[in-house]
Amino acid sequence: MILGIVKGNLVSTIKNEYLRGHKLLLISQIDINGNLLDKQEVIALDLVDAGIGDKVIVVQEGDAIQQMLGHSNAPVNTMIICVVDNIEVIEN
Amino acid sequence: MILGIVKGNLVSTIKNEYLRGHKLLLISQIDINGNLLDKQEVIALDLVDAGIGDKVIVVQEGDAIQQMLGHSNAPVNTMIICVVDNIEVIEN
Amino acid sequence: MILGIVKGNLVSTIKNEYLRGHKLLLISQIDINGNLLDKQEVIALDLVDAGIGDKVIVVQEGDAIQQMLGHSNAPVNTMIICVVDNIEVIEN
Amino acid sequence: MILGIVKGNLVSTIKNEYLRGHKLLLISQIDINGNLLDKQEVIALDLVDAGIGDKVIVVQEGDAIQQMLGHSNAPVNTMIICVVDNIEVIEN
Amino acid sequence: MILGIVKGNLVSTIKNEYLRGHKLLLISQIDINGNLLDKQEVIALDLVDAGIGDKVIVVQEGDAIQQMLGHSNAPVNTMIICVVDNIEVIEN
Repeated sequence: MILGIVKGNLVSTIKNEYLRGHKLLLISQIDINGNLLDKQEVIALDLVDAGIGDKVIVVQEGDAIQQMLGHSNAPVNTMIICVVDNIEVIEN
Repeated sequence: MILGIVKGNLVSTIKNEYLRGHKLLLISQIDINGNLLDKQEVIALDLVDAGIGDKVIVVQEGDAIQQMLGHSNAPVNTMIICVVDNIEVIEN
Repeated sequence: MILGIVKGNLVSTIKNEYLRGHKLLLISQIDINGNLLDKQEVIALDLVDAGIGDKVIVVQEGDAIQQMLGHSNAPVNTMIICVVDNIEVIEN
Repeated sequence: MILGIVKGNLVSTIKNEYLRGHKLLLISQIDINGNLLDKQEVIALDLVDAGIGDKVIVVQEGDAIQQMLGHSNAPVNTMIICVVDNIEVIEN
Repeated sequence: MILGIVKGNLVSTIKNEYLRGHKLLLISQIDINGNLLDKQEVIALDLVDAGIGDKVIVVQEGDAIQQMLGHSNAPVNTMIICVVDNIEVIEN
């Protein structure tokens, strides 16, 4: 699972019927301090109603998504599982 | 899932029977602004009739593909799930 | 599986019910000598009560986690499997 | 799935019984123009009788391999699924 | 699957009961000529009795490991499948 920030909303016309109605967001990866990482962006299904600018936890595995959707028909393997409110860092 | 742009079409003679008749496209990864990322290209099965130059969403997981093909006999784990029409970005 | 060091604790309000009560830690990847690697941080479920600063082994696969949780309802695919006490390196 | 070129043949004495008799090849990743990418080499099971120098498509998922082998006993998750004859690139 | 060299042995006190008794080794990734790659080290279960300095093939997938262990209770997804004796490279 990775930490990211929601950057945008994807609009597509050709969609699998099981994807229809689901929001697909584009997520940039960030570090513990909220800085953008020079990494690839990922596209994630949003079931927790995240907004642009939210810090989120993204999981990349098909089985996890099917558990949340309740069926295994959607061809997706990346989803937002929660919005992060705060990160506690204790320096050693 | 990742965002990419279709760059080319792969032609091969030795093919698994379950791959025969399916188009295999070569996809370069792009960022939210459509710029090419310095990442590896991926090869994806195309079931949505994407064309060269199209921006697409690519999913990399075997189970997702088997759901769209309706059987589990094709030895592939990467596919195009939709063509992207537009990306809405709201700057914060 | 990868070697990492626990850097922080994630606090989130919107949580899947199966995640509730579980600690989510942010892990930085380290090399054999304990130096931080220039790699993306990962978020892992903690079932072994690791503390900030602990060196840990992180496994990234949903099935492995479901085995330790005893059910397959939590949408997570990364977890800490043990705290590392010592690394023996024999130079050749 | 990725595009690669076969670079060498691995010889090992200690082998799982289900791997015995199967050829393991070392593959370097290439881009659409056939240039070597600065990426890690992968080791793949060869069931299509690829030769050194051949451009190949490599799939990295255990399920896909078990489908081609017809059993799930071989502890491998990377295989060559076809030799690529030609890549058609249409510049936009 | 990747090519690596065994660098060290991990010692941990808090262990899942199904991991107890199994050796966990730290592996650095190498190229076809045996040079260390500037990549992350991985931790792998050792069932083939590899020693420090051995060149090994590492597979990263839970299912493959469960096949070799004969049960699906160990929360691991990376293992050494064989020691490599020789790599034949034919220059083209």
